[in-house]
Amino acid sequence: MSKYAFGVDIGGTTVKLGLFDKEGCVLAKWEIPTDKSNEGSAILPDVADSIKAKMQERGIDKEDVVGVGVGAPGPIDSEGTVYRAVNLGWGVFNIAKVLNGYLDLPVKAGNDANVAAFGEMWQGGGKGYKNLVAVTLGTGVGGGIIVEGNILTGSTGAGGEIGHIHIEDNEEECCGCQNKGCLEQYASATGVVRLAKKRLAKDNAPSKLRNGNLSAKAVFDAVKEGDEVAIEIAKEFGDYLGKGLAAVAGVVNPEVFVIGGGVSKAGDVLFDYICPAYQKYAFHGCRSAKFVLATLGNDAGIYGAAGLILNS
Amino acid sequence: MSKYAFGVDIGGTTVKLGLFDKEGCVLAKWEIPTDKSNEGSAILPDVADSIKAKMQERGIDKEDVVGVGVGAPGPIDSEGTVYRAVNLGWGVFNIAKVLNGYLDLPVKAGNDANVAAFGEMWQGGGKGYKNLVAVTLGTGVGGGIIVEGNILTGSTGAGGEIGHIHIEDNEEECCGCQNKGCLEQYASATGVVRLAKKRLAKDNAPSKLRNGNLSAKAVFDAVKEGDEVAIEIAKEFGDYLGKGLAAVAGVVNPEVFVIGGGVSKAGDVLFDYICPAYQKYAFHGCRSAKFVLATLGNDAGIYGAAGLILNS
Repeated sequence: MSKYAFGVDIGGTTVKLGLFDKEGCVLAKWEIPTDKSNEGSAILPDVADSIKAKMQERGIDKEDVVGVGVGAPGPIDSEGTVYRAVNLGWGVFNIAKVLNGYLDLPVKAGNDANVAAFGEMWQGGGKGYKNLVAVTLGTGVGGGIIVEGNILTGSTGAGGEIGHIHIEDNEEECCGCQNKGCLEQYASATGVVRLAKKRLAKDNAPSKLRNGNLSAKAVFDAVKEGDEVAIEIAKEFGDYLGKGLAAVAGVVNPEVFVIGGGVSKAGDVLFDYICPAYQKYAFHGCRSAKFVLATLGNDAGIYGAAGLILNS
Repeated sequence: MSKYAFGVDIGGTTVKLGLFDKEGCVLAKWEIPTDKSNEGSAILPDVADSIKAKMQERGIDKEDVVGVGVGAPGPIDSEGTVYRAVNLGWGVFNIAKVLNGYLDLPVKAGNDANVAAFGEMWQGGGKGYKNLVAVTLGTGVGGGIIVEGNILTGSTGAGGEIGHIHIEDNEEECCGCQNKGCLEQYASATGVVRLAKKRLAKDNAPSKLRNGNLSAKAVFDAVKEGDEVAIEIAKEFGDYLGKGLAAVAGVVNPEVFVIGGGVSKAGDVLFDYICPAYQKYAFHGCRSAKFVLATLGNDAGIYGAAGLILNS
């Protein structure tokens, strides 16, 4: 009887790994460095060796492993083929088949943001829901969409790339993607800082934000202390994000938005600014969507990867 | 051996019905009036009687019918439950179960716009694709989304309601949904007329559109004749629609957009205005999406309904 699954989350610096039991509890978590030399050709062999070592350490037989799930950055289709992952040096190949070749275990693979969304549905903030949009407010704005319990990959692996929805016609600076006015330019951690800098430069209104380092955390800390300038910035952030998520809802009509990433550490105060804007812009048939915080943090990737194996 | 399926498209005035063979060819098409009296309680009995009569007329045994597909206006979940269809007077009940009770045949049901999108995928402009967004530019802007060959229903049946994506911050008039700045206010047939009226009122620039009735058809006819004011209007229409569809692509990343509805009768000239705007606003990973015209017209609903039975 098979009893375990491995979840693997491949990042540009480290690979996170997790050993899970069939109920979805994590039994061990560890990391190995990501070896990006030689176009990342050592990454999957290193992952395989690390999994084999863990199995030996724990006395786990191959027959007891249901499979290995993998999340990696870049477009990855539903068969596990990656179409270039620039952060890893990878070209085009089938992750599932290659890793299966090293391990002789069933392997499934998906885009890291989508896999993390799947993790939040399976064991995180979105547990109990089957139609979910996970939003990661980090350096950029990432997204992962789950429809009827399945990852929405999209035709070229760009499903859920909600950070680059056009949301502002009057933007003069370019987004990292070279477009102008992307959601990411306002709702990411760096986007919040941009909004804050612009607001502070507008006049001399007193604000705690004029002292010390500007960061998304500083903005929302000041909001909690009643700083009026910070509240204006939070409103602007909320208006952009609520508008963007209302557009997303008009397409996939989710039950719940699960908000994660660094900015989400501000906590429930975010919803005071996102939800009113969402209600304002959303089609009435989509207004019942809930907003919750992600709960798995940086472990969402390994949970979701294991979930690909255990929850499908 | 079962050989036939029926496709039923329930509208506010008439019910369209089609008899299909297993290859998806339509063998007969007919209509019956929609009886909306008594909260529409006669509609499904009338449909059942009409199907039975057609079977008798053609000498088709029940064993030869694979099933009956139904499209109807309003939110309908993947199990066939409708949650109020105001145009028909319907409350909440399971269409598939009720019609099965009258016919003793397998029944599947879905929202009419989604079912029409399914029809365009199965036998229309989107044939050969599995990830498709159908856009209906009629009195309003409707949408139907197909992901990996399945209708995206959404958690409350509002999946694909793309006509109400917020697209313009500086709008003072209300959309029919009571929001302001919805895609439908610019890209529907009535939206094009609105844009035209505003443009014509702006100055006295000469234009064929100043003579005769203003309509979306008149605008695109004038575009084809090189009318500069009409071309300005078409550019504005294309910018709004391209921007809206780029947002949709950032969510579901389709292979193809299938453009139908009254406005689409203008033909390929539409793409001269939609596609450049789409390319400008879309995330680079989504720019390979194709644009084609819908080909089934008002029959998309019966095709899609039959397709629910024959193509799943």
